[in-house]
Amino acid sequence: MKKKKKVNAAILIIGNEILSGRTQDKNVAFISNWLNLNCGITVSEVRIIPDVEKIIIKNIKLLSKEFNYVFTTGGIGPTHDDITAKSIAKAFKIKYGYHKEAYKILEKYYGKEKFNDGRKKMAKMPVEAKLIYNPSSAAPGFITKNVFSLPGVPSILNSMIENCKKYLLKGLKVHSSTINLFTVESNISKQLSLIQDKYKKFVDIGSYPFFRLGKVGVSIVSRSTSKIKLNSVKKDLIKAIKLKKIKILKI
Amino acid sequence: MKKKKKVNAAILIIGNEILSGRTQDKNVAFISNWLNLNCGITVSEVRIIPDVEKIIIKNIKLLSKEFNYVFTTGGIGPTHDDITAKSIAKAFKIKYGYHKEAYKILEKYYGKEKFNDGRKKMAKMPVEAKLIYNPSSAAPGFITKNVFSLPGVPSILNSMIENCKKYLLKGLKVHSSTINLFTVESNISKQLSLIQDKYKKFVDIGSYPFFRLGKVGVSIVSRSTSKIKLNSVKKDLIKAIKLKKIKILKI
Repeated sequence: MKKKKKVNAAILIIGNEILSGRTQDKNVAFISNWLNLNCGITVSEVRIIPDVEKIIIKNIKLLSKEFNYVFTTGGIGPTHDDITAKSIAKAFKIKYGYHKEAYKILEKYYGKEKFNDGRKKMAKMPVEAKLIYNPSSAAPGFITKNVFSLPGVPSILNSMIENCKKYLLKGLKVHSSTINLFTVESNISKQLSLIQDKYKKFVDIGSYPFFRLGKVGVSIVSRSTSKIKLNSVKKDLIKAIKLKKIKILKI
Repeated sequence: MKKKKKVNAAILIIGNEILSGRTQDKNVAFISNWLNLNCGITVSEVRIIPDVEKIIIKNIKLLSKEFNYVFTTGGIGPTHDDITAKSIAKAFKIKYGYHKEAYKILEKYYGKEKFNDGRKKMAKMPVEAKLIYNPSSAAPGFITKNVFSLPGVPSILNSMIENCKKYLLKGLKVHSSTINLFTVESNISKQLSLIQDKYKKFVDIGSYPFFRLGKVGVSIVSRSTSKIKLNSVKKDLIKAIKLKKIKILKI
């Protein structure tokens, strides 16, 4: 059996509504968690860009070279501002037109009479793309080289993501361990720094302040592909925290 | 009086906790709305990157050249994983060290006895930076050239953002107008496309599906720096919608 390697991905959110702040993005957190948990794939960069063809093309070219996979969201619906499919076809110089299988799926779903031009547009994509089936509203996503294109509506995206799995290489899953304390970061920053140095190559330790019940707290999150190293870090952290006489919270 | 121009910005979210999906970002929508509403500045790109020095440096160099302003969030606290200030100093080849005014502010806030190394770290930044005062927890943000560095905790960031205003050029505000309908996008895609073509240079029309009360709906959002053009688009949209006999929702 081949040893698993680290596999990474970028997420490209395409949509003026997210950039303008009108709509709160929810897809980044969902895709990132899903990729790590189900495929051992780490999201290494996210970009949010407007619905502008030349900007989409530039980013697709760049990110598809730099990362193992790219996930795009948004811009694959029936209206004039949905230009993701066409832009990806241009980026890879692949013919853009009706995808035979997608056309059949949509024609069957809507029925010949109601299959109008807007709906037909959703069957237009890079003609040689692989389809990502959509159990909730039929219009499929598609895979062009290493780029996975999904819709922007979170509930539809969520229903489709499992259908990406068979096309993805499995990487090393990143495990994480969290310790929550009621203290301020500066009270434990020295200890964290020493422990991080000790496990430099194996574990990433992050420190994130929170507010709860009117108190200031810190979440210490350790992340590693090795469960053993993660446990060692946890022991070291607990020891250091006890020496400072800080109580560890249960949740 | 000089005629106002379009002014743009990029947002650079620095933090493994957002990339991994552990934490849901809220700063993009807040900053983007604030910039447009208060300063007429349009956010043209967002990137989310990990806490890795060379990646931060690369992105700061690139985005600060490409856009009028860059807003960074995250990585300016007291712990080892807070490396934004140092990375920005390196990106611009500016000395990194104690910022005299920031040091004074923090020493006064904590008192000399409680001003430990972790807290002192928050006074370290590009030495010639301008400060962004922090009314909620003292530790200031800072401005290096055209890069504004703010903390990652949304409530603290929100309390500080007004203090950025005096350093920002005012641009042309983008106004928006929304029409909500209970219909599917493909039912009006043709009409939207025709109206978008008519106002190509002046107004951006976006179409966003939603679900409400078990029904499928569409928000049509028009955005423009010209209120007059926006009104013309609205009239054209309403006319087209009425011809299709679709009811316009009040909210």
